[in-house]
Amino acid sequence: MSKIKIGLIGLGVVGTEVYNTLKNFPDVEITGIAVKDTSKKRNIENFDYSILTDKPQDIIDNKENNVIVELMGGVHPALELLTSAIEKGKHVVTANKELLAKHGEELFALSEKNNTVILYEAAIAGGIPIIMPIKTILASNKITKIEAILNGTTNYILTNMDVNKSSYDVVLKQAQNLGYAEANPTNDVEGLDSAYKLTTLATIAFNHRVKFQNVYHEGITKIKSEDIKYANELGYKIKLVAYATNDSGKIDIRVHPMFVSKKETLAHIDYVTNAVTLEGFPIGKITLSGPGAGGLATASSVVGDILSIEREYGTTDYILPMMRCNHTHDGNSEIIPISETENKYYLRLHTIDRIGGIADITKTFASKRINIETILMKEIQSDNTSDIVIVTEKCKEKLISEIEHELLQSGCIKELSSKIRIS
Amino acid sequence: MSKIKIGLIGLGVVGTEVYNTLKNFPDVEITGIAVKDTSKKRNIENFDYSILTDKPQDIIDNKENNVIVELMGGVHPALELLTSAIEKGKHVVTANKELLAKHGEELFALSEKNNTVILYEAAIAGGIPIIMPIKTILASNKITKIEAILNGTTNYILTNMDVNKSSYDVVLKQAQNLGYAEANPTNDVEGLDSAYKLTTLATIAFNHRVKFQNVYHEGITKIKSEDIKYANELGYKIKLVAYATNDSGKIDIRVHPMFVSKKETLAHIDYVTNAVTLEGFPIGKITLSGPGAGGLATASSVVGDILSIEREYGTTDYILPMMRCNHTHDGNSEIIPISETENKYYLRLHTIDRIGGIADITKTFASKRINIETILMKEIQSDNTSDIVIVTEKCKEKLISEIEHELLQSGCIKELSSKIRIS
Repeated sequence: MSKIKIGLIGLGVVGTEVYNTLKNFPDVEITGIAVKDTSKKRNIENFDYSILTDKPQDIIDNKENNVIVELMGGVHPALELLTSAIEKGKHVVTANKELLAKHGEELFALSEKNNTVILYEAAIAGGIPIIMPIKTILASNKITKIEAILNGTTNYILTNMDVNKSSYDVVLKQAQNLGYAEANPTNDVEGLDSAYKLTTLATIAFNHRVKFQNVYHEGITKIKSEDIKYANELGYKIKLVAYATNDSGKIDIRVHPMFVSKKETLAHIDYVTNAVTLEGFPIGKITLSGPGAGGLATASSVVGDILSIEREYGTTDYILPMMRCNHTHDGNSEIIPISETENKYYLRLHTIDRIGGIADITKTFASKRINIETILMKEIQSDNTSDIVIVTEKCKEKLISEIEHELLQSGCIKELSSKIRIS
Repeated sequence: MSKIKIGLIGLGVVGTEVYNTLKNFPDVEITGIAVKDTSKKRNIENFDYSILTDKPQDIIDNKENNVIVELMGGVHPALELLTSAIEKGKHVVTANKELLAKHGEELFALSEKNNTVILYEAAIAGGIPIIMPIKTILASNKITKIEAILNGTTNYILTNMDVNKSSYDVVLKQAQNLGYAEANPTNDVEGLDSAYKLTTLATIAFNHRVKFQNVYHEGITKIKSEDIKYANELGYKIKLVAYATNDSGKIDIRVHPMFVSKKETLAHIDYVTNAVTLEGFPIGKITLSGPGAGGLATASSVVGDILSIEREYGTTDYILPMMRCNHTHDGNSEIIPISETENKYYLRLHTIDRIGGIADITKTFASKRINIETILMKEIQSDNTSDIVIVTEKCKEKLISEIEHELLQSGCIKELSSKIRIS
């Protein structure tokens, strides 16, 4: 008889691979699967259609099940279903990054009250082992910084723009044709997906609850081929970075495009691969990389979590050790607003060529006490305009906004074509 | 009162950082520390010298201690001490890669008999979380391949030879002056240290006991600046790779220099950083990188292991879940001898320039049915010799030895200056 009886919600790409992988583990049994369409043909060998239902609540109400595996995604009805499951004392394994980012605080509180666990390795960086290591083997560390690539779609687009010197629009279309980007790509390209994952990752890594609405996010839609060209010239790659630092409880957390030095491992994480760099004490700096999505890789993490529950199950007080692993999910962290963060900046200024132009621009920077590290000016265009690229030393974000305003007001520049933070 | 009482053996660089880190965890107490010299001044704040002893057996005999942390290194007397500890029912945390490689089989058998655990995250790749993830969150996977950089000293030397275009001897001396290489560097530069670590890593990853004496190893002492130059030209970096594959129980396992494509993450792991790439099903390919040595990083893993024991301690049958994590440590795997392995090769042939020379050489390759992928010939030297570089397609190692023999016999080449396998 199986120790663990699972009610599975969702039998899409990930669910199917979870089902297939669990066949190798006789101590774990799937008793029922909730799907939208019970009559749909499933591409699984010798599949027993009688365990399908289109009523997920039935799966949860089934007293036999002690673990609910949620792979449906989205907030509703996942939130209501998992709330009900936890209230019935069932453990939860989920890959639902949006749900955890938006309702993690209440779900983890409920789970603690009911002496159950919620495991979610698959929700952050797919197959990469990151949540379990932070909770166990890295537990002696105070983690102070996260720099991560948590979205395969945008990394695929940025890599292709770089390798093939193509524009964003062209590459997005290719990615959509290949199935790497959705018809409506907003969630990925605007940085929302990364921000969901970063919310939970930072909460665990810093042991401070981060609220999703406090995570600044900015996507890749405004990145131009010229920016990628200049990045290469200056020794960088442009990546959509999920970035967070914790300085004694003051948290700087955000998702946006970043110049990453080619000397960093993160700069070499290409196409759909994800990576997480952590800095902490005593460990120093580690980078974990691998497939951030896909049915097989995600199934590795989902089943890894299921087997962790199975391993602990049946020892008296079996849930205690795992509870001890639960980091802080409630309370509030102090978040530094984006305008108060400090960064180096890559700025591409669109200017009209005139005598004294550069002098006026650099004077404006000096007036704000911002040091310029690099300045590049290429050929003047036929319309008498030219792009000037400036790399600043570290300064406050709000000073850059002030400079932009002044340069526009004084007519020194036609526009600030690009502003990309440097890691 | 502390749940866990530790007897610590060794208070060097790692031991000191373990001691410091454990101060943050009141549930773990160090009751005694065995050192060589009890009178030596220790650089630890408010250190209580009364817990020092120069008799490690006393630490083990102390009935209070339930965990022994061994950081002395080497086989003797570590083997005898840990054997005694396990027989007394104590759990062991160790960073001793040589001991585990040479006596892991007997130690793990003894530990299983005594219902104790041996944890050793720090013994393989220092701070990088790899053993615990394989045993827990990756447990659903069948791991089929390992490619790793497990030795910081050799990676530091190879990186410097590349970056500074220096010779092996010059860089080794620098590394010794900086403390990155020992006065007698044999253990590192001949690949022994990597082979120790790979023995245990492959045993766990493949769930097949690998015997250290079956792990082929070859160091970096014969790598020439020319080879590094050609590697770059051909799109590779030279790394000392710990390599192992498992094809249904037939294991190919070895440590030697390798050409690693610049497209691979491993090629960009520089200086003293270590990295482990695993391939498995369903996960695909992941790479974990970070500091492979040093007091702080190693302490992160040692304390991570200690906290894992502490977490499980006190639940009834508390040791069962961890025992279930113990992979196969006995039995024997079938090892493919190096001569039977298949590789692509980079060959640098030192030849005397003559008409028909290249024709004769390439004919010899064709006679063994080995396809040449690339051939490079640079300027002829004043002594009428020249280097010819050949990159082969995949073929058996023993064929390359046969070709070397034939080319020497026929006078086609003066010597095979370099033979480096390609990843």
